[in-house]
Amino acid sequence: MKNITFPPAPQSKAELEEGAVFSPKFDAHGLVTAVVTDADDGMMLMVAHMNEEALALTLTTGIAHYWSRSRQKIWKKGETSGNLQNVIEIRTDCDQDAIWIRVRVAGDNATCHTGRRSCFYRSVALENGVPALSKL
Amino acid sequence: MKNITFPPAPQSKAELEEGAVFSPKFDAHGLVTAVVTDADDGMMLMVAHMNEEALALTLTTGIAHYWSRSRQKIWKKGETSGNLQNVIEIRTDCDQDAIWIRVRVAGDNATCHTGRRSCFYRSVALENGVPALSKL
Repeated sequence: MKNITFPPAPQSKAELEEGAVFSPKFDAHGLVTAVVTDADDGMMLMVAHMNEEALALTLTTGIAHYWSRSRQKIWKKGETSGNLQNVIEIRTDCDQDAIWIRVRVAGDNATCHTGRRSCFYRSVALENGVPALSKL
Repeated sequence: MKNITFPPAPQSKAELEEGAVFSPKFDAHGLVTAVVTDADDGMMLMVAHMNEEALALTLTTGIAHYWSRSRQKIWKKGETSGNLQNVIEIRTDCDQDAIWIRVRVAGDNATCHTGRRSCFYRSVALENGVPALSKL
């Protein structure tokens, strides 16, 4: 695999926002936020983080890789469960500090470690002035 | 406005993941990631951050508020442009460290400061082995 590196952000804001150079803005921990949706129906599946290596692996293999903050290692999502994420499209935002990944999930279509399709299975609303969760 | 506070995470992982108590996990900077989509067609609009106050304001007013990391202050999205975000639904994920907000955007339906509907207007792909951006 060709070694992929990411250039630093350009000096020019116009270049950062309108240019063709991909210069993801990794935070102090070397991570960018990755938001993952189902490529077919747009369902929000999960939010995770990528370091430079995870992003490079995702680009070169077409399978989503993340950085596990809890385990402090590269996380090939679905490697154990079989619910691999085949990448259909990758996008970045105006200031290049977030990544949106549109995927098709293999296996039994579960993304959440609880077995659910999506990690976002609870809504938040005020009940008598107190925030509370409801399962969907 | 009733003062809203958020309890610390429960000791029990089962309670955190399956319970009804909303205990968002703010990071070392006091922020949670907020992912924002259009409530009608699911379009990914933006990724931002919320501190406790922004989250409380969003819950109590029904208008999305964020924490501007660049300006270091509460950011009522659309206050200047008119593109306010009316909150249709708020969700959180299994470990409660991310918030998904489904909104309807007022004004001229632009979310990005560049005037576009979404901040995610560029795709990322390898071109001759080098990551590059393409406008959509």
